Amino acid sequence: MKLLRYGPQGAEKPGMLDSTGTIRDLSAVVEDVNGASLSPDALAKLAAVDPASLPAVDGATRLGPCVADAGKFVAIGLNYSDHAAESGLEVPPEPVVFMKATSSICGPNDNVEIPRGSEKTDWEVELGVVIGSTAKYISEADALKHVAGYCVINDVSERGFQIERSGQWVKGKSADTFGPLGPWLVTKDEVADPQALSMWLDVNGERQQTGNTNTMVYGVAFIVSYLSQFMTLHPGDIITTGTPPGVGMGQKPPRYLKPGDVVSLGIEGLGDQRQDVVAAK
Amino acid sequence: MKLLRYGPQGAEKPGMLDSTGTIRDLSAVVEDVNGASLSPDALAKLAAVDPASLPAVDGATRLGPCVADAGKFVAIGLNYSDHAAESGLEVPPEPVVFMKATSSICGPNDNVEIPRGSEKTDWEVELGVVIGSTAKYISEADALKHVAGYCVINDVSERGFQIERSGQWVKGKSADTFGPLGPWLVTKDEVADPQALSMWLDVNGERQQTGNTNTMVYGVAFIVSYLSQFMTLHPGDIITTGTPPGVGMGQKPPRYLKPGDVVSLGIEGLGDQRQDVVAAK
Repeated sequence: MKLLRYGPQGAEKPGMLDSTGTIRDLSAVVEDVNGASLSPDALAKLAAVDPASLPAVDGATRLGPCVADAGKFVAIGLNYSDHAAESGLEVPPEPVVFMKATSSICGPNDNVEIPRGSEKTDWEVELGVVIGSTAKYISEADALKHVAGYCVINDVSERGFQIERSGQWVKGKSADTFGPLGPWLVTKDEVADPQALSMWLDVNGERQQTGNTNTMVYGVAFIVSYLSQFMTLHPGDIITTGTPPGVGMGQKPPRYLKPGDVVSLGIEGLGDQRQDVVAAK
Repeated sequence: MKLLRYGPQGAEKPGMLDSTGTIRDLSAVVEDVNGASLSPDALAKLAAVDPASLPAVDGATRLGPCVADAGKFVAIGLNYSDHAAESGLEVPPEPVVFMKATSSICGPNDNVEIPRGSEKTDWEVELGVVIGSTAKYISEADALKHVAGYCVINDVSERGFQIERSGQWVKGKSADTFGPLGPWLVTKDEVADPQALSMWLDVNGERQQTGNTNTMVYGVAFIVSYLSQFMTLHPGDIITTGTPPGVGMGQKPPRYLKPGDVVSLGIEGLGDQRQDVVAAK
C-alpha cells in the first residue's frame, strides 16, 4: 500500500494511492495516517479495503507529510561508505545518531525555507523508515517486524548551524520545512529489499546525488535494533538513515541553496519530491 | 497555578493543586495539561476557575509528567559556569543544544531505569521551561511571553552512551524514564524571577548538587529567543536548561547510579521529585 495525507497544511486527510495512481480518501476508514494506523493489525485491516470503494480525490491536491504526529524524528549520520570516502572521513565504528525537531516535518512538495542568517542550506536525499510497533531492546533479526514502511526524506541541513555554532547537529537540522516527508509511506510488503534502492537528487534539474541503499554502512534492520538499545521507538516515529554522495558541502567549491532554486529527489519505488526554495519570512 | 497530571501511566487526568496542597480534578475543564491548555488565553480561563468547585483527589495518587504530548524535549548543555568547570570544559560561546527523546519523559516520582549495558547513569537537576505559544524568530525581550511556566526536570544521562559511542549526546539522554517532569507546572505568574531559584539533588539522602539559576550562563529569555532562531517552538514543548555542579561524572572518582539508589531533587517554589533507581527489564 501507498499511504499518504492530502489537503491544506494542518488539515490533512488520510489517503491511499490506488493502482492507477489515483488518491482515494481514507477518512471514513482511519482517523489519520499516524502511529495508531500503522500497527501490523491496523495495516492488515487497511489492506483488506478495496480502494475502488473509496471516494477518488482531485489529483491536484497538496500532499502533506505522509505520517502525522511523529513522536521522534531520529537521524543517522555518515551512513554511506561512498559518501564517507568522498568526504575523506572515517566510517564511524557505530552509528552517529542525532535528532531533527519534529516541527521540521513538512509535505514532500512544500516550499523549503532558508532560515534567517543561513548561508549554507544543503540537501540530503535519504531513505526514511516509519516505525509500526513499539521497539525496545529489539534484536537485528526481529527489527523489521517493527517497521511499517518506507518513504523519501530530504534531510535539509544548515551546515553553519550544524557544525560551526557550538555543538550538536540538531541546531542545523531542525528549521521549519527541513523535513519533507513523502510523497507516500510505502508499506514494507511492497519493498522487496530496503538495501537495494537507487536514489537521486537534482538541483535546478542538474543531478547532484546518485546513490543506492546498498552502500549504506549500517542497514535498516541494524539501525532499528541499535536505536532500540538507547531509546524506545514508538509507532509513527521516523528514522532517516543517512545520505549518499553529492551534498553541497562536499563539492569544490561548496554549493548551497538559494531562493529560487528547485530541489527534486526520489527513491526507487518510493516516489519523488519537488521543493521550491524560498527565504524564511 | 500549579498544574499537574495524575493517575496510572498512560491514563493520566489533568489536575490542579489548590492552596491547601490538595489535588483538584480538572478533567471537566480541560482535556489534558498539554499545548492546547497552556496558551495565554487557556491559562486565563483556568485561572478563573475556583479550585474549591472541583472534585478533590486522593493525595496518594501517582503523579504523571506535568505536561502531556510534548512535541520536542530540547536541552541546553554546559549552561552553568561552575558545572562546565567541574566537567573540565570551557563555557561555550553560544548555547550547546541537544535533544532528549520525548519518549524519555515520565512522572516525577516514577522509577528511573538504568539501561541495559549502562555503567554510567548520572543525575542532573534542571529548571524546565514549558512553552505556551508558538515562538519563531522571537527577540529576547519578547521571549517570556511565550513561556507558560516552569517545572523541575531530572535530565538523567548515561555518560558512556553520551560521550563514548560515536557521537551526538542524544544517545545518552533518551532512555525511557530519563526525563522525570514535575511534580507540577508552575505558571510563570507565580515565579517572580526564574534566574533566582535555588536547586538541589540528593542521592540516598546525601547532597550531591547545590545550585541556583542565578549562575546560569544563558538565561531563560535568551535561550527561548536563541532556540527560536533554529527551530519553531510550539505550545507544550519542553526546554531543560542545564545543570549546576555536583553530577556523578564530575566527582573524583566518578560516582554513578545503581539499582536501589534513591534520587531526590527540587527547585525553590517548583516542588520536589523522588525516584527509585531500578535496572531496565
